[in-house]
Amino acid sequence: MTRVTQRRRVTRLSADGAVRERADTLAGEEPLEIRVGGRPLSVTMRTPGHDFDLVVGFLHGEGLLRGWDDVAQIDYRSGIGADGQRDYNVVDLTLADGVTPPDPSLERHVYTSSSCGVCGTASIEAVRRVGAHDLATDVTAYPVGLLLELPDRLRAEQAVFDRTGGVHAAGLFLPDGAGLRLACLREDVGRHNAVDKVLGLALREHGMPLRGAVLQVSGRASFELVQKAGMAGIPVLSAVSAPSSLAAELAEDLGMTLVGFNRGSSLNVYTGRHRVV
Amino acid sequence: MTRVTQRRRVTRLSADGAVRERADTLAGEEPLEIRVGGRPLSVTMRTPGHDFDLVVGFLHGEGLLRGWDDVAQIDYRSGIGADGQRDYNVVDLTLADGVTPPDPSLERHVYTSSSCGVCGTASIEAVRRVGAHDLATDVTAYPVGLLLELPDRLRAEQAVFDRTGGVHAAGLFLPDGAGLRLACLREDVGRHNAVDKVLGLALREHGMPLRGAVLQVSGRASFELVQKAGMAGIPVLSAVSAPSSLAAELAEDLGMTLVGFNRGSSLNVYTGRHRVV
Repeated sequence: MTRVTQRRRVTRLSADGAVRERADTLAGEEPLEIRVGGRPLSVTMRTPGHDFDLVVGFLHGEGLLRGWDDVAQIDYRSGIGADGQRDYNVVDLTLADGVTPPDPSLERHVYTSSSCGVCGTASIEAVRRVGAHDLATDVTAYPVGLLLELPDRLRAEQAVFDRTGGVHAAGLFLPDGAGLRLACLREDVGRHNAVDKVLGLALREHGMPLRGAVLQVSGRASFELVQKAGMAGIPVLSAVSAPSSLAAELAEDLGMTLVGFNRGSSLNVYTGRHRVV
Repeated sequence: MTRVTQRRRVTRLSADGAVRERADTLAGEEPLEIRVGGRPLSVTMRTPGHDFDLVVGFLHGEGLLRGWDDVAQIDYRSGIGADGQRDYNVVDLTLADGVTPPDPSLERHVYTSSSCGVCGTASIEAVRRVGAHDLATDVTAYPVGLLLELPDRLRAEQAVFDRTGGVHAAGLFLPDGAGLRLACLREDVGRHNAVDKVLGLALREHGMPLRGAVLQVSGRASFELVQKAGMAGIPVLSAVSAPSSLAAELAEDLGMTLVGFNRGSSLNVYTGRHRVV
């Protein structure tokens, strides 16, 4: 059975010569193989848990699924280990009738690492996905003070980080009156996995586009996170750390508001300034 | 022409209502397509620069190259953009005579994100690479005080981080008398890229195994970083943050010393305790 965390003996050594043996809690990292229609599509290194949401969120971001209605069945049926026991590291997804399966020529023989979320194509031209949602029509705007609270609200719920210090987090905040409520938080050794898990749940419970939503992430904002948020119709992506150059370029192209260095008393708005008041 | 950093207009908003427009420096992130023998093998999101080292370091970690002698030619020849100008986002590598090309059936149609370093196989069984170097025979040991200095020594040289706050770093420390000298430091939006760039240079200048070496990384230690260090014959991997469960398991299997939470006055030794005195 897969685990979110793992206990391990560790030796703590200090500059003053102190040596202490103790048990430490590590963030779980295990490979997850994704199969669609029986064919291996991708392997990602993830923290076990919420695997079905991860798979559906990932495939939505890749443009393969438009919603949970496109899923006929999802389970762990293929994962039987050498010991004959069920192995929870293979997820099988069967597409609903009428849903176009992945083009075999594009089939991705991919082992995505714990920080890799948009793997799968051989050429640069194919990197960018085109989403169905036009963010320009989403004119939600939020007070800067409300956005500044989000990292602390995320941090307050990060149970796995508290124990391990070794996971990323993604939180989906949805409009709630004049404010925002935390609809879903997920933690994972891979930040793209945390986002996929959040978006898989959002697709299941809320549908897309996620108008007026803010996706808050614990680390940096890379190209792939902007792309995933765009595919979900999320108008605001906020990161605790820096965005990359390509993240800012894509956010601008999509009409998304990209916030970075959201830390306590100030934040940077890189694109979509009109949504921050 | 690709760039290590990019200037961009940004609006800084503070809780007290202050609004300041200014120029910000972002870490460059651009796709790099890797072609071997003319065939696209992988696309990685990286910070431009040291691309040849990145490609060779990556392919060594994948078991495709044993050294620079296995490379007949490496250049940007295929990268001509739509405007007819040279595009520095495609690296072409030609293998030397006698070097086995990648199995076409294993050919990886991979778009690796900025944090993805070991992409490429469809099944869990194929995730793990087997290296040629036996770490058990490397009995180097270092005083804890020396290891505690490494994060600060790395940080002191992180020029891109100083400007952007948005990149990972990897530093290769080699034995130098009773101490360690920083042989190479690289920064990248992807930590696996930073490690590949360091290892590509190491392969070119030092050869492998890198006996007695310490690889210091700025962030967490994941499975793929342990794997890359193992392929290079590096006996000690030290991370500023937490390792994952699988990183610790693989380090133990390989006989590698894995240090985590290396921060100022103390560090944790997860595996290979005998190399820390």
